[in-house]
Amino acid sequence: MAVPFILDTDSAQDDCVAILFGLLDPAADLRAITMVAGNVGFDRQVHNAAMTLAVADKVGACPIHLGCSRPLMRAWEGAEDVHGDGSGGLSMDVPDGMVSNEGAVDALLRMTSEEPGELSIVAIGPLTNIAAACIADRTFPQRVKSLYIMGGSNNGRGNITAAAEFNFYVDPEAAQIVFDAGFSDVVVLTWDPVTLTDALLPRLDYEELCAIDTPIARFFKALCDHTLAYDESVGVPGSTHPDSMTLQCLVHPELILAEAPYRVDVETTSALTRGYSAMAWDKFEATANARVIERADSAAFFARLRALLETHTRPVLPISGL
Amino acid sequence: MAVPFILDTDSAQDDCVAILFGLLDPAADLRAITMVAGNVGFDRQVHNAAMTLAVADKVGACPIHLGCSRPLMRAWEGAEDVHGDGSGGLSMDVPDGMVSNEGAVDALLRMTSEEPGELSIVAIGPLTNIAAACIADRTFPQRVKSLYIMGGSNNGRGNITAAAEFNFYVDPEAAQIVFDAGFSDVVVLTWDPVTLTDALLPRLDYEELCAIDTPIARFFKALCDHTLAYDESVGVPGSTHPDSMTLQCLVHPELILAEAPYRVDVETTSALTRGYSAMAWDKFEATANARVIERADSAAFFARLRALLETHTRPVLPISGL
Amino acid sequence: MAVPFILDTDSAQDDCVAILFGLLDPAADLRAITMVAGNVGFDRQVHNAAMTLAVADKVGACPIHLGCSRPLMRAWEGAEDVHGDGSGGLSMDVPDGMVSNEGAVDALLRMTSEEPGELSIVAIGPLTNIAAACIADRTFPQRVKSLYIMGGSNNGRGNITAAAEFNFYVDPEAAQIVFDAGFSDVVVLTWDPVTLTDALLPRLDYEELCAIDTPIARFFKALCDHTLAYDESVGVPGSTHPDSMTLQCLVHPELILAEAPYRVDVETTSALTRGYSAMAWDKFEATANARVIERADSAAFFARLRALLETHTRPVLPISGL
Amino acid sequence: MAVPFILDTDSAQDDCVAILFGLLDPAADLRAITMVAGNVGFDRQVHNAAMTLAVADKVGACPIHLGCSRPLMRAWEGAEDVHGDGSGGLSMDVPDGMVSNEGAVDALLRMTSEEPGELSIVAIGPLTNIAAACIADRTFPQRVKSLYIMGGSNNGRGNITAAAEFNFYVDPEAAQIVFDAGFSDVVVLTWDPVTLTDALLPRLDYEELCAIDTPIARFFKALCDHTLAYDESVGVPGSTHPDSMTLQCLVHPELILAEAPYRVDVETTSALTRGYSAMAWDKFEATANARVIERADSAAFFARLRALLETHTRPVLPISGL
Ligand SMILES: [Ca+2]
Ligand SMILES: [Ca+2]
Ligand SMILES: [Ca+2]
Ligand SMILES: [Ca+2]
Repeated sequence: MAVPFILDTDSAQDDCVAILFGLLDPAADLRAITMVAGNVGFDRQVHNAAMTLAVADKVGACPIHLGCSRPLMRAWEGAEDVHGDGSGGLSMDVPDGMVSNEGAVDALLRMTSEEPGELSIVAIGPLTNIAAACIADRTFPQRVKSLYIMGGSNNGRGNITAAAEFNFYVDPEAAQIVFDAGFSDVVVLTWDPVTLTDALLPRLDYEELCAIDTPIARFFKALCDHTLAYDESVGVPGSTHPDSMTLQCLVHPELILAEAPYRVDVETTSALTRGYSAMAWDKFEATANARVIERADSAAFFARLRALLETHTRPVLPISGL
Repeated sequence: MAVPFILDTDSAQDDCVAILFGLLDPAADLRAITMVAGNVGFDRQVHNAAMTLAVADKVGACPIHLGCSRPLMRAWEGAEDVHGDGSGGLSMDVPDGMVSNEGAVDALLRMTSEEPGELSIVAIGPLTNIAAACIADRTFPQRVKSLYIMGGSNNGRGNITAAAEFNFYVDPEAAQIVFDAGFSDVVVLTWDPVTLTDALLPRLDYEELCAIDTPIARFFKALCDHTLAYDESVGVPGSTHPDSMTLQCLVHPELILAEAPYRVDVETTSALTRGYSAMAWDKFEATANARVIERADSAAFFARLRALLETHTRPVLPISGL
Repeated sequence: MAVPFILDTDSAQDDCVAILFGLLDPAADLRAITMVAGNVGFDRQVHNAAMTLAVADKVGACPIHLGCSRPLMRAWEGAEDVHGDGSGGLSMDVPDGMVSNEGAVDALLRMTSEEPGELSIVAIGPLTNIAAACIADRTFPQRVKSLYIMGGSNNGRGNITAAAEFNFYVDPEAAQIVFDAGFSDVVVLTWDPVTLTDALLPRLDYEELCAIDTPIARFFKALCDHTLAYDESVGVPGSTHPDSMTLQCLVHPELILAEAPYRVDVETTSALTRGYSAMAWDKFEATANARVIERADSAAFFARLRALLETHTRPVLPISGL
Repeated sequence: MAVPFILDTDSAQDDCVAILFGLLDPAADLRAITMVAGNVGFDRQVHNAAMTLAVADKVGACPIHLGCSRPLMRAWEGAEDVHGDGSGGLSMDVPDGMVSNEGAVDALLRMTSEEPGELSIVAIGPLTNIAAACIADRTFPQRVKSLYIMGGSNNGRGNITAAAEFNFYVDPEAAQIVFDAGFSDVVVLTWDPVTLTDALLPRLDYEELCAIDTPIARFFKALCDHTLAYDESVGVPGSTHPDSMTLQCLVHPELILAEAPYRVDVETTSALTRGYSAMAWDKFEATANARVIERADSAAFFARLRALLETHTRPVLPISGL
C-alpha cells in the first residue's frame, strides 16, 4: 500500500525531484505540498512546484499550500548562489487554482486531524511551517505518524557555514522547536554524511541520466545543472539529492542501511555556530529524540531515480525552455 | 466613542482588574479576551477570567479564546509564588459556552481582518499569542491599530530576575518577534519605572479601597491580597497594577504624562540576561520601534480604580468564597 | 593614616582628576599607577598620566606601569568621541624614567606580595589588568585589601550602549573574571545611579571651579571641557566624575551614604547586552560578591574637588597649552 | 638537528607518552615542560610528569614549570572518568628541585625572548597557559616558531560532548584567544579525524607493545590501560595517542600526510556547543589561521612508538607499582 504523506518543501533543484517521486512513485501517496521559505524567492519556489506538477502531468492531483514566507525570528536567507532560480530558467503560466486558498499550517493541522496517526510528513526545507504548526497546536505532533527531516550534519561538515547545513541554519529556532515538540518518530537525513556519501551522483552518471529522452529527464537536467556546477566549484564531486533521498527513505525504508538513535539539538544562541546540529550518540546518555540515518543504499536510490527519469509523461501545460 | 480592543492576558491578580476595566469602563470596548500561558496554570487563568466576567455581570458579553499553552521555545514558568492561584482561592462552576471554540490566534487573525486598522490589542501577559499570530500571518501587524504591551523595564530593575521582567522573561523569543514584526504603533508600559512608581498603591490606600462594600471591591481584595503580601516581602511597598494601568493608558491616553520613542529588543541568547529588554533612547540613533511610557498619572488612575470598585454589580453566578 | 593603594586607570578626563586626588589628598597614599587600554590610545593615556604627575609637581613620586594594551578577547574600542584625547590637547615632553620597566601585572603581583592584605586597588578603567593578574596568580585576590571598581550600572542606563557602561563593555570577560575571582572586598561605583546623580557637576558649578586661578584648575578645565560638551549633547546635564568619586570613596568612606550587597555578573555571551552588569539584590538570594554604592555624598565630594583645584602647585615640566 | 620546543601538557596517559618522546627521541630537543590544568588533578599531573622523567632516566634534564591551575573563566573540569589518575596508580617520592620555582607563563615568555623565532611549542592540554602568555605579552606569539596544538575536531565528533573535544571544551576562551593571537604558524591535530583514525592502536597491537620487557613499556601499559578500557566502553576501538602524535608531527613532519589551511574559531558563547571548533575550509574564504592535519602516517608513528618502548632505561628513582 502506498505511504500517505505531506511534503513540506522550499522547492528548487532536488526538492522538485522529491516532488516527482511523490507524484510518480507508486509507493508514494503524496497528499499535499506545503511551501516554506528557503532556497529561492518564495514566488519562484511556488512556480517551480507548479511546473513540477505540470511536467509529471499531475496538475490537480495534489494541492499546493503556501506557508511561512520567512523564518520565525530571522531574516530570510536564500541559496540562490547554489541553485540559481532552482529550475534552470524554465517558466510556465501557472493557471488559477493550482495554489490552494488554505494556508500550509492550516492544512497540516486539518489533514492530521482528519486522519490522526495516519499521515507522515517529509520536511525538506527549513522547519518553519512544522514549527508554526506545533506552536498553533501543541497536540499536532501526536497526530503525525513519522516526520522525516532533511537537515543538519551528523558531526560532519556544514554547507552554508562550516558548522551548519542550510535548512537548520535558515531557521534554527524552528528546528529546535520541532526537535523538542514530542513527535513520536523523527527520522533525519543529514548533509554529511549520507548526502555527501550516498546521495551523490558523479558527473558521468549524472550526464547519462540527463541523456534519457523524456520530458522528466530534460526537466531534471534543468533543475540540477546549476547546482552541480556550484557543487563542483566547492569540491563536492557530483549532483546532490538529499531531498529526494529523504522521501525515498520514507516510502522505501529498506534504503536505510544504518541508523541510530540520537539526541538532536540545534544551535540558536551563537553567531559562530548558528544552526549547528548537535547530534549526541548513545555515549552521552541523553534521551534520544530522533533516528539519524547513517548510511543509505545509494545504488538502489539511483536505480529508482533512473526509473523515474525514464517515465514517459505528457506535460499538460507548455513550459518555456523545456 | 469607546475604544475597541482585544485583551491578551494571563489572568491572575491585576490582569483581572484590567478585565474589569475592559468590561465596565464606558470608554473601553472590550471585544474579546485571549488567554496566554503566564502567571498561573492555564486552566486556573481561564477560571479567573470567567469569574471576572461573572462578578461584572458580563457573562456572555465577551468571548474568551484560548491561546498558546506554553512559550514558543521554552518550558512554561509561572509566578505562583507571587500570585497564588491569582484570585485568592475563589471558585465558580464555569458554565458551558463561556470559552469560545475558536482559538486565540485564529480570533486575533479573524477579528483584525474583519476590521483592519480599527482594533487595538492590549497584551498584558507573555507575548506568545501575539507572536504566534505574526508567524501565522505576516500581514497581521499591519491590521492592528495600536499594540499596548505591559512588559520589560526601561533600564531599571527586573522582577523575575534582576535583569528581567516576568512577561518578557517567560517568552523572550515571542517578545523579540513582536518588536520586530512591524506593528505601526507599539506602546510599552514597563515594570520599572511606571509600575513601581505610578501604578503602586500603598497599603493604607489599598485597604481603603478594599473596604468598599461592593462585590467588585471584595473580588479586588481576593485578587490582590496574595500579591501585595509577596510584594511587601521583597521590598515593593504597595499593590502593583501594571496590567490595568496599561489598559487605561489605551482608553484614556491623557494618563500618559511622559513617553519617548525607543528601540526595544529583548535578550534571547544569554542565560544571565534572558528576557532583558534593551531599551535604547534617542542617543543611540537606532530606529525606534515603540513608544515607551516614562510617567503616568497615578492619581487619575487610582481615582478610576476607586470608581470601578464602587460600581454595583449583581454577580450572575455564585462564586464560592466571595 | 593615609590609605595605601594602586590606581589602575585608562587615563583621560576624570581618570586624571583621580590621579590628582591620589597625589595630593593627604588621606591618599598612591603607590603606583597601572595603565590599561580603555578611553583613548594607549600612548596618549600614558602621556596624560605623565602630564598629571607634572602638573601636581609629583614627577618621580609615583611609578607608571604599563599594562594590557588590549582587552582579553575583544578588539580594543575607545571612547575618543566622548573624551577627545583626554586632556584637551595639552602636551609635554615626557622625560625618561617616568614609565617603569616593570609591567603593570608584574607590579600588581609583586606589590601585593610584599604587603599582603595591606594594599587596596582602585580600578577605574576596563578590568583587563586586574583579570590578568588573577590569571597569572590565583592567590592574588587574597592579597588585596579592597578592590574599588568604577563600572557598570545598577539596574540603570548604560553609556556606551543602552545596556552597558563603557568599562565593563570594553572587556566583559575581564570584568566577569574579576567578580568571580574571590576578592574579599569589592566595592562598585556605577554609572547609573551615583555617577549620574551624585558625581555630576552642573555647568555653572563647573565653570566656577574652572575659574580658580591655579595650574591644577586650568588643567582640570583642559581635561573636562570636551567630555562635558559631549555629555551635554547626549542629555547628561553636567561634568561627570565617576573615577575620582570612586577613589574618594576609598580614602574617605564617609562619602558612601548608602550601599548594599549585590551579586554582580557581567554579560559576556550576548551581542545585544555585551558588558551589561547584572546586579542582583537580596531578593534573589544569590551569594553577594560586591558592595554596590547606591548613594554618595555629592556635596562633600565637590567640596573636596574645589579644595584640590585650589591647591597651588608649581608644575615641574612645561606643558604646552596650559 | 634536533627540534627545540616546549611541551605544554596536562600530563596523564598519552601526555606522558609525549613526554617520553620529547626526552628520548633524538630528533626532539625538549627544553621545558609547562603544566596546565586539564585531565586530572593538578598535583597528580605534576606527579605523573615527574615519574615520566624518572622512568626515562632524565631527572634533571628538563624543568617542570607549573602554570595555570584552572581555566581563564570556567571552573576546572577534568577527565578522571577517562584517565583515572593518568598513570595507573603508580607513585613515587618526587625529590625537591624537579619542579621549577619559575612559573609556566614566565618560562614561556623568558625562553622565547632568549631565542626569538627559534623555539616551537607543543600544546597538548587546554590552552590556558598559552593564552595567559599572550595576555601577559602581546608580542609573545611573534617569538614562537611554530605552535602545535592537539585539540578540537575537524567537522567531526567530539569526545567530552558530542560537539566538543576535551582540550577546547575545558577552556574555550583560552583556545579562542590563541587562535586570534597572531602566531605565525599554528598546526592543529584533531580528535576526529586523525586521532580516531591514525593515532588509534587496536587492542591486539596494544597488547603486543605492552609485552615488551622494558621499564618504559611497563610504564606505558600503566599509563594507558585505564583509558583504553574507557575508550572501548564508548565505542572507540583502541588506545588513543593524540598528544604523542602531535609532538611527532613537529619533530618528524613527514608524518603529516595531508593538511590544509583552515580558519579555526572556538565556541565560547553557547552552552550547547561550548568548545566546538569551527573549522572553515577554503570554500568559506575566511582568512586561515591554522594548518589542520587531515591525515597522518599511522604506521610510521606506531613504529616510532615501538622503538620508544623498546628503549632500555634504568629508572633513577623507585616507582611504586612499576
Ligand atoms: Ca529543500
Ligand atoms: Ca499579566
Ligand atoms: Ca576611567
Ligand atoms: Ca593532554
